[in-house]
Amino acid sequence: MELTVIKIGGNVIDDKAKLGSFLQAFAGVAGYKILVHGGGKVATDIGKTLGIEPNYVNGRRITDEATLELVTMVYGGLINKNIVAQLQAEGCNAIGLTGADGAVLPAHKRPVKDVDYGFVGDVKSEQVNGLLIKALLQNGLTPVFAPLTYGQGSLLNTNADTIAQEVSKAMAKYMPVQLIYCFEKKGVLLDAEDDDSAINNITANDMGELKENGIISGGMIPKLENALEAVAQGVQKVVIGHAEELAGLISGNAGTSIT
Amino acid sequence: MELTVIKIGGNVIDDKAKLGSFLQAFAGVAGYKILVHGGGKVATDIGKTLGIEPNYVNGRRITDEATLELVTMVYGGLINKNIVAQLQAEGCNAIGLTGADGAVLPAHKRPVKDVDYGFVGDVKSEQVNGLLIKALLQNGLTPVFAPLTYGQGSLLNTNADTIAQEVSKAMAKYMPVQLIYCFEKKGVLLDAEDDDSAINNITANDMGELKENGIISGGMIPKLENALEAVAQGVQKVVIGHAEELAGLISGNAGTSIT
Repeated sequence: MELTVIKIGGNVIDDKAKLGSFLQAFAGVAGYKILVHGGGKVATDIGKTLGIEPNYVNGRRITDEATLELVTMVYGGLINKNIVAQLQAEGCNAIGLTGADGAVLPAHKRPVKDVDYGFVGDVKSEQVNGLLIKALLQNGLTPVFAPLTYGQGSLLNTNADTIAQEVSKAMAKYMPVQLIYCFEKKGVLLDAEDDDSAINNITANDMGELKENGIISGGMIPKLENALEAVAQGVQKVVIGHAEELAGLISGNAGTSIT
Repeated sequence: MELTVIKIGGNVIDDKAKLGSFLQAFAGVAGYKILVHGGGKVATDIGKTLGIEPNYVNGRRITDEATLELVTMVYGGLINKNIVAQLQAEGCNAIGLTGADGAVLPAHKRPVKDVDYGFVGDVKSEQVNGLLIKALLQNGLTPVFAPLTYGQGSLLNTNADTIAQEVSKAMAKYMPVQLIYCFEKKGVLLDAEDDDSAINNITANDMGELKENGIISGGMIPKLENALEAVAQGVQKVVIGHAEELAGLISGNAGTSIT
């Protein structure tokens, strides 16, 4: 059976109505499926109330001990378990996981070079427990991953895009996998001002020209490079598009496909 | 293989050193095992900082919407996932669960009679998903339950003692089960002033005399009645004793056995 791995970020999580209609659509996706969710403003808001101020070095968020407790509560508890409960209500047999559960996502605590990022994990790709994920899927369960990995005896903060990619690559050994990144636009736009100008398909060969023409820049460059790497490692297709068009992203009628 | 279900409460959870040595002992328990944990002061403390004041009616805590969010974060996230990470560090392949995960613990939202308890769940005993728990155990996993069940589309707050009892009764259909309640004393004490006076064994026949003599009273009466009910429904043995004596409680050399 084919597996669809879908990642959603804060723009969906922070909006109850958007999250509700997304989860309804997600529950209806056929075949094996996995949801990976990011953080969201709620973590920052709760952190502020608890007196945990975001700590940045060179523009990068540092995960100190208090922040790790915060994201363990909010990502691993509040967001993850509420998504699981809502999916159950939609008839989707979800199970919430962090990387520590079943040691499913082992990671290295990021080594200190110029910056000590604190409790941040880089996934050990070769050790992702794909067999456990496969067993859960075969038992009729839909894993829902919080953006937390596990290493050196601790939970570790890890980017949700990365987790979606690592899970997809690991599962590609066992079944056909497509990976869908939901974000706030309808795809990679030819014209940044026109939300209906999404490029239908991008391959590795297109990258040079797209970069030269300035059509892709900034954070989109690593996003696409990661997508191409996932494809190179066996993922059949990566699709980038808007959470509200989930059915179209899956059928290939919306978003930008990277193949 | 025999299954040991062990419940710990706030007195262990709130003390980092005690929790660490308990989890080390737990990781060493042979055979199938399940951990059920309660809440602890940390939830009240975080709640206070967030401005969520405990709300009591007739001495019973009410779970309003803010409190449900709090316990979802703290029980389902902070406490549960930290226990899972620490067990992984001890070589025990733990997986954290609430009742919503895999719909493993379906519950009724407690109906409003004299008091509206809010988001509190009473487990639907006959619907506990013992087959999922069995599948997890057979895949080498050790389930760790937070005191949260699932019903009417929502997580629900449920007493950890009750969850331990319901899980034990459900699993008794598939394998021999012993249920161990860790609390702050060494067992049911003949002399309340003497912590070394634990009664070795209690059966249903002893209850009348123990109540008459005032040896058991207050909260111990429903605890023992629940234990006897679990035994009546197929659990081989219930043991009540101190978390620091886990090995003795399992081997029968410490605590009070209810058979």
